[in-house]
Amino acid sequence: MFPAKRQRLDKKMHDLRLDAVALNAGPTLAYLTGLHFHLMERPIVLIYCPDQAPVLVLPVLEKAKLEQIDYPLEVYAYPDNPSAWPDIFKQAINARQLHDARLGIEPQQLRVLEYHHLRSVLPESAFIDASVAFSAVRCRKDDEEVQLISKAVAIAERALQATLLQVKLGMSEYDLANELVIQLLRHGSEPHLPFAPIVASGPHGANPHARPSQRTLAAGDLVVIDWGARWHGYISDLTRTFAIGPVGQEEQHIHRLVQQANAAGRAAGRPDFPCSIIDDAARSVIQQAGYGSQFFHRTGHGIGLECHESPYIHAENQQLLQPGMTFTVEPGIYLPGKYGIRIEDNVVITETGCQSLSSFSRELITLY
Amino acid sequence: MFPAKRQRLDKKMHDLRLDAVALNAGPTLAYLTGLHFHLMERPIVLIYCPDQAPVLVLPVLEKAKLEQIDYPLEVYAYPDNPSAWPDIFKQAINARQLHDARLGIEPQQLRVLEYHHLRSVLPESAFIDASVAFSAVRCRKDDEEVQLISKAVAIAERALQATLLQVKLGMSEYDLANELVIQLLRHGSEPHLPFAPIVASGPHGANPHARPSQRTLAAGDLVVIDWGARWHGYISDLTRTFAIGPVGQEEQHIHRLVQQANAAGRAAGRPDFPCSIIDDAARSVIQQAGYGSQFFHRTGHGIGLECHESPYIHAENQQLLQPGMTFTVEPGIYLPGKYGIRIEDNVVITETGCQSLSSFSRELITLY
Repeated sequence: MFPAKRQRLDKKMHDLRLDAVALNAGPTLAYLTGLHFHLMERPIVLIYCPDQAPVLVLPVLEKAKLEQIDYPLEVYAYPDNPSAWPDIFKQAINARQLHDARLGIEPQQLRVLEYHHLRSVLPESAFIDASVAFSAVRCRKDDEEVQLISKAVAIAERALQATLLQVKLGMSEYDLANELVIQLLRHGSEPHLPFAPIVASGPHGANPHARPSQRTLAAGDLVVIDWGARWHGYISDLTRTFAIGPVGQEEQHIHRLVQQANAAGRAAGRPDFPCSIIDDAARSVIQQAGYGSQFFHRTGHGIGLECHESPYIHAENQQLLQPGMTFTVEPGIYLPGKYGIRIEDNVVITETGCQSLSSFSRELITLY
Repeated sequence: MFPAKRQRLDKKMHDLRLDAVALNAGPTLAYLTGLHFHLMERPIVLIYCPDQAPVLVLPVLEKAKLEQIDYPLEVYAYPDNPSAWPDIFKQAINARQLHDARLGIEPQQLRVLEYHHLRSVLPESAFIDASVAFSAVRCRKDDEEVQLISKAVAIAERALQATLLQVKLGMSEYDLANELVIQLLRHGSEPHLPFAPIVASGPHGANPHARPSQRTLAAGDLVVIDWGARWHGYISDLTRTFAIGPVGQEEQHIHRLVQQANAAGRAAGRPDFPCSIIDDAARSVIQQAGYGSQFFHRTGHGIGLECHESPYIHAENQQLLQPGMTFTVEPGIYLPGKYGIRIEDNVVITETGCQSLSSFSRELITLY
C-alpha cells in the first residue's frame, strides 16, 4: 500500500481500535493500493493489519496486475472453479491473527459474497462499520488529486461546449446524451465514465434521475443536462439547464432562484464549519421563495474516485468542512408535469473558503 | 413485477422453500420489475412474497421512476438524511410476515449495507443464498432477449469495423480504445457500456484483463481487442486478436490453435449436456498442442443484463445447457513477456445445438 495513505489509515484504525480492515474490489482498495479491479462474480479481498504486509486474495487471472506493485504483498490466488475458493480464503485469513479481532469493513462496498467468506473463517470476530475511517482517509484530497478533478471538470466543460453546437430542434434526449458521451471521450475522458449523462427535457426534467428517452427537444422546453468525465480515476459531475428557444417568465424566475441558491451554497463553504451550512445557505434561498418542497434532495455529495462519496451536503451533516474536501453544490427545483431546473458545480474547500473548480456559465442559455 | 417472470420466480422459490426474497438495486431487480436503479450510497431494496404486492424501499428522489409501473407495488420512500432510513426499513419489512421466514438473497449483489438493514429487523430469519433461483429465472432468454443480445452483437461488430479503419502504426492502446468506444456509441450502443474495452498489444496481451495503456502499436505486434455494446440493457462481449504487420510462424500457429479451440467449443454446445462439455472441447485442443497451462481461465460466462452471469463455462460446471442460454466462448493462450491471443464469440443454445450470434471474421487479420 502507498506509505502516506497507509499511515493515515493506521491512525484512523487506531481511533476505532481496529486490529485489521478487509476491503473488496472498489475505490478504497484502489486508493490505498493503486490496484484497480472490477467488482465481479469472483471475490477479491485485501486484509490489512498495521505493521504487516497486506494479504490479497484474488483470481489467478488478475495476478498480472500485481507486476506494477513495489511494496510487500502476500498473495493468495484462486482458480476459476468456485469450489476451490473457500479453502484459499481460509489460508489467506489464517495468515493473520484475526480470530478475536475487530475487523473494519465498508458496508456500502462489501458484498454478502465476500462477507460470508470472511465470516465463515472468523465466526468470533467483530465486524465493524469502518466507513468513517475510510472516508476520513479519502475525503481530504491532496493537490495532485484536486488537479485531477479539475482536469476532469475541464474535459467535461469542453465536451459540453462541443455538444451544444450540435443541438437541434427535434433531436432526442437519447441522441443528445450519446453525442455528449462521444465528446467526453474525444476531449480525453477515460472510457469508464462516472455515470451515463442525464438529458431530461420538458416534464422529464422534473425527475432528478431521469434516463435519456426518445423524447425530442421542442421549442419552449427546458432541458437539464447532468454529465461528468473521468481523468486518472477521478471524476467530475456537473449540471446545467438550458432553454430550447424562448421560455416563459416563470421558467426564467425559477432559473434565477436556482442560480442564487447555487451561488449561496458555494459562498457558504469554509473550513471548520459543518457541511450543513452549505445546505442551509442554498436551501433557504429556495424555501424563502416558496419552493422548499420542490427541492427534495440534498444539496451535494463528495466527489473523487467515486461519484458519490463523503462528505455529503445535507441539513443534518455536522461533519466539519476541511481544506481539500471536494464536492458538488447542486440545488434544484422540480415541478412535476412541467419541468425541472438544476445547477451543479464542483468545489474544493481551501484554507480560507470554497473555490469552484467549474466555470461553465450558470446563466440560462437559450440554445435555439 | 412482470407476471410471467414472477411466475417463474414463484416456482423456483417454492423449490428452495423460500417465504420471500430481498433484492437490492441491480440486474435481477431490473429484470423482474423493469426498474433500473444505480447501486449507490442510498440503499434500495425490493421484498417479494408470492401472492402479495412487492414492497419497495427507495429514496424519495427515485420515486418518479415508479410512474411507469402498472402493477401493484407498496412503496416506502425515505428522505436524504440517513438517520431516517432504519425506521423506514423497519416499517417496510414489518409490512410482511417475515420474522421466522426463509428469505432468499443474492450474495453477489446484496451489500452488507442492505443486509444489515434487513438483518437488524429480522434477527431470527434465515437468509438463504438464492442465487441459483435468480439465475435459473434469468438464464434462459426468451426470443425478445436473444434479439436484443443479437442487436448488441451487431452494434459491436459494426463499431469495430469502423474503428479498424482508423488504426495506425504508433497509435496508443488508449487512443484505440477511446475510438472504439466512440464508434460503439455512434453505432447505437447505450452509453452505459458493459465494460471498458480492452486493447492489449504486444506483451500486454498476455494479461487477459489488461487496461489500455499509452503503449503504441508497433510492427510485428499482436493486439487483443475485447469489447462489447449494450442495447435495451442487454450486452455483447466479443474478442478478436489482430496482427500489426506481418507476424512470425509461432504467432500464426498459436492463433490457429485458438481459432480451432473456439470452433470446437461452439460446436460442442447442445441442450441437456453439461456446461463443462464446451470447456472440455475448447481446452483439449489447446492442451493437446502443449499450451494447456497458458490457457488459465474458464472458457466462458453467461451474458444478458450482466456481462458475467450464469451459466459459467468451466470444467467443473455440471449444470445442463438449455435452449435460450446465452454465453461467451473465449479460449485464449497467454505467453508472458511475449503476447496473448483470444477469440471470443457470443452464442445461444438452440433446440438442437449452439448458434453463434457473432460473425466477425475469426481469421488472423493483418491491420497494417
